[in-house]
Amino acid sequence: MNVSAALLVIGDEILSGRTKDKNIGYIAEYLTNSGIDLREVRVVPDIEEEIVAAINTLRARYTYLFTTGGIGPTHDDITADCVAKAFDVSIDVDPRAVEVMLERYKPEELNEARLRMARIPAGADLIENPISKAPGFMIGNVIVMAGVPNIMQAMLDHVAPRLRTGTRVLARSVDAAGLGEGIYAAGLGALAVEHQSVSIGSYPAFQSGGFRNQIVLRSRDEAALDLAEKAVIALIAGLSSDRTPL
Amino acid sequence: MNVSAALLVIGDEILSGRTKDKNIGYIAEYLTNSGIDLREVRVVPDIEEEIVAAINTLRARYTYLFTTGGIGPTHDDITADCVAKAFDVSIDVDPRAVEVMLERYKPEELNEARLRMARIPAGADLIENPISKAPGFMIGNVIVMAGVPNIMQAMLDHVAPRLRTGTRVLARSVDAAGLGEGIYAAGLGALAVEHQSVSIGSYPAFQSGGFRNQIVLRSRDEAALDLAEKAVIALIAGLSSDRTPL
Repeated sequence: MNVSAALLVIGDEILSGRTKDKNIGYIAEYLTNSGIDLREVRVVPDIEEEIVAAINTLRARYTYLFTTGGIGPTHDDITADCVAKAFDVSIDVDPRAVEVMLERYKPEELNEARLRMARIPAGADLIENPISKAPGFMIGNVIVMAGVPNIMQAMLDHVAPRLRTGTRVLARSVDAAGLGEGIYAAGLGALAVEHQSVSIGSYPAFQSGGFRNQIVLRSRDEAALDLAEKAVIALIAGLSSDRTPL
Repeated sequence: MNVSAALLVIGDEILSGRTKDKNIGYIAEYLTNSGIDLREVRVVPDIEEEIVAAINTLRARYTYLFTTGGIGPTHDDITADCVAKAFDVSIDVDPRAVEVMLERYKPEELNEARLRMARIPAGADLIENPISKAPGFMIGNVIVMAGVPNIMQAMLDHVAPRLRTGTRVLARSVDAAGLGEGIYAAGLGALAVEHQSVSIGSYPAFQSGGFRNQIVLRSRDEAALDLAEKAVIALIAGLSSDRTPL
């Protein structure tokens, strides 16, 4: 069974380049290791109609939609309202969220701005935030998390056990032994056709003083993966010992 | 005049988390500094229909669409073919691309796989690749670049002078002097309403041993930006000297 996901990164600061996103790579790796296929990522600005449209498109297409960013206390934090709008439900200060926030803030510190962080769309479940308490939430198949990386990571750990997961995709990496992609591309393409249940990719990796390409094989079927890996290793070994330039 | 752009990152390896994208932040900052507003980013897998659909949606919505990834010599490099399909034009080995590739490869080294990198959609202009020679290209408003960061960066430098640019968005950063967002959120929200031509955002930044929030103001109108910046500085100064917990 395949379980799919999309990630929606919300924030002008990512699109202006002022903040360099650290969440996409983390979430991608985390979901892959959990047996959830991340199939699409979008980054959109802090504009209501853009956020609402992206939420509705992506939640309809994939098993889960994760969002990061826009759930703080300032006026530019509009994610929770956009989610409520996308689901056409009401949103208000949630007593459960206030309760957890009172573990960190004194009652007189819970001003209107901070209470914005307790506004949760009707019908959502809270996602714990052990770091700064203001919670994330899950409504339908949409998981709404903070943008600050360590808070997002804690929220992901908290919500992950509630999610359906599929058979994990297994990966194998074969070092191309210093060969250029153009040397093994034809043979690799033939193997990709031969081993249809295995996804085969070639990734140039530049290192100091040269490059060292990696061939990555991915499949849910371990036996098929073993076969394809052996074939790729044999391909590379054959080409490495052949010193003609092709 | 505003000039807008989207970025389409193409590659299974980004979505699996195996490769951590380094291009989004670089391109975002580069375009912002060039007077081009990056308004949306998408990451899609190496699947033809996904790539073609994203190209056609994004090129219609923005002044420019930049793509990264999928223009190497292996079977999983399908970006050029997808662009040709999106534009409904033919694609074939381009003599101009072969000519530049012969600066690096001997004629007998230009095998079928490497010639894949010379396949350019009809009507496209080449984008120089000083590093490994295989070119990127621009067709209509779509700019197709490599995924390897240093090659992408060189291609961006090469294509940038050809692009229309708008008035640069200017940015100012005001340090929140150790105040939590909840302390200044109400005042900042009021200033955002008052200074409509300035986009005001608040960004928590966690540092070793605490946090140091930044308020970022962005506008094309320098006089308006000056006014708003002064107002934010005064807001923070007023709150910093007030030692009550609200």
